[in-house]
Amino acid sequence: MLAFECDYNQGCHERVLQRFMETNLEKLPGYGEDKYCMSAKEKIKAACECPEAEVYLLTGGTQTNQIVIDTMLADYEGVIAADTGHVNVHEAGAIEKTGHKVLSLPEHDGKLDAKELAEYLAEFAADGDKEHMVFPGMVYISHPTEYGTLYTKQELAQIAEVCAQYEIKLFLDGARLGYGLCTPGTDVTLPVLAEYCDVFYIGGTKVGALCGEALVFPKHNMPKHFTAQVKQHGALLAKGRLVGISFDTLFTDNLYFEVSRHAMEMAEKLKGILTKYFEFYLDSPTNQQFVLVENEFLKKLQEQVRVSVNRRYDEKRMVVRFTTSWGTTAEELEELDKVLEALSR
Amino acid sequence: MLAFECDYNQGCHERVLQRFMETNLEKLPGYGEDKYCMSAKEKIKAACECPEAEVYLLTGGTQTNQIVIDTMLADYEGVIAADTGHVNVHEAGAIEKTGHKVLSLPEHDGKLDAKELAEYLAEFAADGDKEHMVFPGMVYISHPTEYGTLYTKQELAQIAEVCAQYEIKLFLDGARLGYGLCTPGTDVTLPVLAEYCDVFYIGGTKVGALCGEALVFPKHNMPKHFTAQVKQHGALLAKGRLVGISFDTLFTDNLYFEVSRHAMEMAEKLKGILTKYFEFYLDSPTNQQFVLVENEFLKKLQEQVRVSVNRRYDEKRMVVRFTTSWGTTAEELEELDKVLEALSR
Amino acid sequence: MLAFECDYNQGCHERVLQRFMETNLEKLPGYGEDKYCMSAKEKIKAACECPEAEVYLLTGGTQTNQIVIDTMLADYEGVIAADTGHVNVHEAGAIEKTGHKVLSLPEHDGKLDAKELAEYLAEFAADGDKEHMVFPGMVYISHPTEYGTLYTKQELAQIAEVCAQYEIKLFLDGARLGYGLCTPGTDVTLPVLAEYCDVFYIGGTKVGALCGEALVFPKHNMPKHFTAQVKQHGALLAKGRLVGISFDTLFTDNLYFEVSRHAMEMAEKLKGILTKYFEFYLDSPTNQQFVLVENEFLKKLQEQVRVSVNRRYDEKRMVVRFTTSWGTTAEELEELDKVLEALSR
Amino acid sequence: MLAFECDYNQGCHERVLQRFMETNLEKLPGYGEDKYCMSAKEKIKAACECPEAEVYLLTGGTQTNQIVIDTMLADYEGVIAADTGHVNVHEAGAIEKTGHKVLSLPEHDGKLDAKELAEYLAEFAADGDKEHMVFPGMVYISHPTEYGTLYTKQELAQIAEVCAQYEIKLFLDGARLGYGLCTPGTDVTLPVLAEYCDVFYIGGTKVGALCGEALVFPKHNMPKHFTAQVKQHGALLAKGRLVGISFDTLFTDNLYFEVSRHAMEMAEKLKGILTKYFEFYLDSPTNQQFVLVENEFLKKLQEQVRVSVNRRYDEKRMVVRFTTSWGTTAEELEELDKVLEALSR
Repeated sequence: MLAFECDYNQGCHERVLQRFMETNLEKLPGYGEDKYCMSAKEKIKAACECPEAEVYLLTGGTQTNQIVIDTMLADYEGVIAADTGHVNVHEAGAIEKTGHKVLSLPEHDGKLDAKELAEYLAEFAADGDKEHMVFPGMVYISHPTEYGTLYTKQELAQIAEVCAQYEIKLFLDGARLGYGLCTPGTDVTLPVLAEYCDVFYIGGTKVGALCGEALVFPKHNMPKHFTAQVKQHGALLAKGRLVGISFDTLFTDNLYFEVSRHAMEMAEKLKGILTKYFEFYLDSPTNQQFVLVENEFLKKLQEQVRVSVNRRYDEKRMVVRFTTSWGTTAEELEELDKVLEALSR
Repeated sequence: MLAFECDYNQGCHERVLQRFMETNLEKLPGYGEDKYCMSAKEKIKAACECPEAEVYLLTGGTQTNQIVIDTMLADYEGVIAADTGHVNVHEAGAIEKTGHKVLSLPEHDGKLDAKELAEYLAEFAADGDKEHMVFPGMVYISHPTEYGTLYTKQELAQIAEVCAQYEIKLFLDGARLGYGLCTPGTDVTLPVLAEYCDVFYIGGTKVGALCGEALVFPKHNMPKHFTAQVKQHGALLAKGRLVGISFDTLFTDNLYFEVSRHAMEMAEKLKGILTKYFEFYLDSPTNQQFVLVENEFLKKLQEQVRVSVNRRYDEKRMVVRFTTSWGTTAEELEELDKVLEALSR
Repeated sequence: MLAFECDYNQGCHERVLQRFMETNLEKLPGYGEDKYCMSAKEKIKAACECPEAEVYLLTGGTQTNQIVIDTMLADYEGVIAADTGHVNVHEAGAIEKTGHKVLSLPEHDGKLDAKELAEYLAEFAADGDKEHMVFPGMVYISHPTEYGTLYTKQELAQIAEVCAQYEIKLFLDGARLGYGLCTPGTDVTLPVLAEYCDVFYIGGTKVGALCGEALVFPKHNMPKHFTAQVKQHGALLAKGRLVGISFDTLFTDNLYFEVSRHAMEMAEKLKGILTKYFEFYLDSPTNQQFVLVENEFLKKLQEQVRVSVNRRYDEKRMVVRFTTSWGTTAEELEELDKVLEALSR
Repeated sequence: MLAFECDYNQGCHERVLQRFMETNLEKLPGYGEDKYCMSAKEKIKAACECPEAEVYLLTGGTQTNQIVIDTMLADYEGVIAADTGHVNVHEAGAIEKTGHKVLSLPEHDGKLDAKELAEYLAEFAADGDKEHMVFPGMVYISHPTEYGTLYTKQELAQIAEVCAQYEIKLFLDGARLGYGLCTPGTDVTLPVLAEYCDVFYIGGTKVGALCGEALVFPKHNMPKHFTAQVKQHGALLAKGRLVGISFDTLFTDNLYFEVSRHAMEMAEKLKGILTKYFEFYLDSPTNQQFVLVENEFLKKLQEQVRVSVNRRYDEKRMVVRFTTSWGTTAEELEELDKVLEALSR
């Protein structure tokens, strides 16, 4: 059965697996203190052109969002996110579990608008009643967003400027960052993120690793005793090597970007195929494509192809997501084209 | 350099790695819904001789302890543990982070005493002031304990009986369970645990897996919406296959017990070697051995051998831990013997 | 200076104070176990015509909201509220502090709409992805609402029906309940609330008490070990008599309703006065009146009258709240009329 | 019935009540912003001879302990307390509820020993494994302690020195501070506390107020946005005047010390009486006296006198607490003497 429902349905890039085999019996220190973690961190700092950065390797996305938000905010602060933001909708309350409110603003194709953000913060600053409210302490954005859309460098700069003005932090969730960075035409790079963000992460789970996210604090601002805090969240991996070797490999010979570019080529092909059969829900430049599929058609489609049903669009149609990844092949896409053609007859 | 500091300093058993390679490109559902997770769970239920059990796969030990305690206790309840218990000392406050107090009782070679437990619970039950106190809701024990010691079947039965009498839960942390179950002379088996415990876990991280713990609810008592609660704790692995394949392999052809028995054979050899040079801190029957090492000697030892320094014993000596694991070889032990002999001259 | 900014700017009704004096030196048990607390509870149960109800006395509104929501929800559940709901906006994150998300729905003059609620719950029930989301476990409404508006008995019945259908709880915040119950024309009574709500509270702080809210669990559904849980939230008053005597007095000879009716008579007068000078922001039937005041006018007004500035309405005008209470006098209102007239010339 | 079970079984000092009456109808700002709160704070700062201090008025003891510990510790820090400390035993887990572990040290007549504290902190500082442990961030002591004992100025200085050396905070719980400060022979004064402590509170609930504790931050170190944090804990009183007027009155004309001295005179009398009939459990210099009472005797005693049964001492005897307060009269003590004499015949 064809499977385009997500970008984390396969294991990991073969070179990562190869490195697991080569290093398997080496006796290494635990908890991320091994040489592969060290090496991975150095390579990531180099790729960010940010030697003063601190890098910390974690296991998954929700875990990373929870830890970043909880450890970087004061207890009385909340995090601003688009109402469609992952932290606001799809993390089972992991943010609130640690005591922080998600303050939602309207989304625009999944993105926050710098102007609306500034207005919100200005209004809060002017509110005489603010001691009865949740203080905004951080802005959370994802890049690509939940809808596959991207910020431009200028948009990031504007958001960062607003954050700086109100002295709140900017956090960028890069669970699919590789795909965003390798989208043709984008002017956003790792050094750009290191410049504008207070903290961001480079997703591995969806971009070639078995699991793992590389969290980057570009401003020498990693929270104090961060390892203890990660442990306190139940998130300290005994065998940090699992993530360390993954990122060390992905950041050797540009593998991270190579696999991302491959996914984007596949995404372009996918887009071309989908155009023939569906109307797009919105224009996503990255590896997630959202189309409108009629209910009847969807039913038959799902017998042959795994897709992700996003939500109801209208009485007759659903928003359906097709995704490519580092592991998608041209053959699979050709097969998809045939299936769709057959179903459309 | 020789390394006996812990049982999680190598990757994973080669058969597990082999299965990762074979299944790597299969497109599987995420979040533990794949066929390997399903298969692993069935095999574990069979090994426990407990078809009604529910099994849930998690990533690490502290994470598992935190989730079990937080999801199985009422908000106003705490967990009873030996004062040396892992949850009381070495989890950076992960239990309290979720709002629950660890109520400590005296340890006896790392173990809780059923009688003292009963006395504590009787006293609490009789206290007219209890609405001002933390209600004991669970007993946490580890098997093997932090000091490598084991409960007998009878001791477990006694603790379980006390728990039943006071209607509180019994949770057994089995981070090193394989080694405990394969210790010569023990009468504790997986079915025994399934009978006496309300919840326990079968450790993978320290027993042949890259990471992972298999949590068993033998009494059809898995907390409601457990996946949502795991997610809320930031602990839901996108690629559940990572743990699923590990346990599926470890519970095929008794591999879990095979590797555990190997570690125990190595532990016997280790014990024989250590006896020649050191006084034992206590008599541990399992893969962790604790000896008293003079400060000067320790300094030189650490130049050639990685060990775990547990704590100060007296002015001159430290309690030092040597550990074997599934990956320990006879050659390493012979090498250790030679080093110790040379240092002792 | 005239003061209409809120309904909690004076001490307490003189009869309450009188009772404090009469009972002051009696030696009473602490923590709400005294005879006045007992008596107050019995009187409240009688007023609710609900002998099986359990009543618990607490100190303040946010505290009560926090405790109710935290103790009645499962850890993975959130509470649904209108986006203007007090728990969503004005409690400094007290709800999230205890780990629960506020799930906001659109407000209509401060109220939730039963139909929209049903749609939200139906959509959640149908979502295949729900284990990644916050489970709705309770509906929070306030009566009167933040905007002084009231539910009809039928509207309450409809919301209660939706809650019952989806097996979630209905919680009514009655911080200003007296004023709501004594509004001419309302068909909502204490027995009606006891029938439709799973939990509600009768506000004292704003209705004649020095402080205190009487929490009612009409369905024998008070959370287990509730006193311990109140203590755990830091909210157990040593001298429970403080609130007990207040409610015992307020529920003797219908004082609670008498003072509420007085405030409503004053509110009618106030409404008549405001009509002469301002446009109303919305039509509130209770003791809070919201009018649009031009910025220049407001500035001058505030030199003579304390009011509550709610928020910006447009470039030129603010939404301003005038409030009456149990302590408002006709003389004050006449004075206000004169001030407004003078300013309007 | 005679009542010596605690020091909070009566209302409040008549002068406080008098002030409630005089000010009752004044329209005052809420949330502690009124003139009486302001005045109370100024008087307390003066009494502490600490003009730079910040004072905040709260409602109760557990609430104050919870808020101080939660707002002054980093998330990964715990609080050190004697194992008999109120925060460790009698607050229903309120400290852990906010995520912080209580790290217990042995008590000596209810007190912490500076030397043992220093040893504990030195050991922690030397521990290479500390990122897996809870960081000690504060020392909690009570004065008088749970057993009525007092620190000397020198003992406080020593504890403060240890705290300073390890850069952790010193918090003194003064729920019964008045009685401690007015104990004959003590060299501890409010200015002494302001010098040695990072934060402490002056108890009102047990010393003449209806409720309320005055929290003092003597080093200009009140946590940021403290009102918002108090609100977030559900502890912000709408009518702050309730506590403000109480402390303003208690700190006028030395009333706080006057009522405390009275209680201490009564305590001396009480001690003289108890000596005739019982063996003391320990030597308490303050208003709580602990004696050993035989079970049979206790049973009969409780028919005529309310006392607090602390805990079992041995097979035959219980530790029983008798307490005096601001409201105790010489007549009551004479009555007690007669009752004890009659029972002892």
